[in-house]
Amino acid sequence: MRVLGIDPGSLVTGFGVVEEQSNGLQALAWGAVRTTARQPLSERLKRIYDGLFKAVQTWQPDAVSVEQVFFAENPKTALTLGHARGVALLTVAHAALPLVEYSALEIKMAVTGYGRAAKSQMQQMVQMLLHLDQLPQPADAADALAAAICHLHTQKFRARVSR
Amino acid sequence: MRVLGIDPGSLVTGFGVVEEQSNGLQALAWGAVRTTARQPLSERLKRIYDGLFKAVQTWQPDAVSVEQVFFAENPKTALTLGHARGVALLTVAHAALPLVEYSALEIKMAVTGYGRAAKSQMQQMVQMLLHLDQLPQPADAADALAAAICHLHTQKFRARVSR
Repeated sequence: MRVLGIDPGSLVTGFGVVEEQSNGLQALAWGAVRTTARQPLSERLKRIYDGLFKAVQTWQPDAVSVEQVFFAENPKTALTLGHARGVALLTVAHAALPLVEYSALEIKMAVTGYGRAAKSQMQQMVQMLLHLDQLPQPADAADALAAAICHLHTQKFRARVSR
Repeated sequence: MRVLGIDPGSLVTGFGVVEEQSNGLQALAWGAVRTTARQPLSERLKRIYDGLFKAVQTWQPDAVSVEQVFFAENPKTALTLGHARGVALLTVAHAALPLVEYSALEIKMAVTGYGRAAKSQMQQMVQMLLHLDQLPQPADAADALAAAICHLHTQKFRARVSR
């Protein structure tokens, strides 16, 4: 099973592709779609859509995993994040892929086994779980990889329970 | 000049097409794209995208006018609105149309001449300005028509000033 994780943001949208292989989890690709605040908002959203759609076409994932968002610092931040997140979810719908959402707590638990893990711990665990030589960069890509890992772990757990 | 106004919302996204003709403003079409909270979010966003894209293709506007949003009641509302608004702005970018944004105050001033007009007064003025037999329904379509009227008024004013 191959999962694309997405961490949407209006300036940086991280993505990461993780596959369950016989010898464990393998990161196939990760990176970020970047925009600048100087660009018109609609152009930035188009760039996010195009970047994610390209990732979907290139890596043909079986599912897409995105962090669920319940809260944001303030309405302005939430509105801006919402624009990028809406476009990311549209990409998934246009590619007719199953979308799964996990809370930040679920992702932290799946990756570090600890719900209050710091961001730096998360990145280190992502590096370890995926046998990477370095910390996955940028941080948004590491978060996207974490969302993908969370879905693969959850699927594995469910499969075990049902057996 | 023909302008498409959009009033994005996750449950109801209103749209309205207004054209400047020799005898004044004319409403060519108005309506709404509706979704239900039961549908998965990505499906709802796809529906909004498809509905708006169809309106763009059918009515071939010269520009799209959308209300600027600075505030929302709370982060949760802002996030949900942001998803729908992001998809609406993406439609505009995909259609390669000029996007103009006006504040709620500018739209009220353009339509009623009064910045604190109530929603019902706005709808009545939209009906009057566009010579409609009835109040434009739903309210979200009336808001979309108001955004389109605002852009046409502003353009007319600018043209006069530059002459």
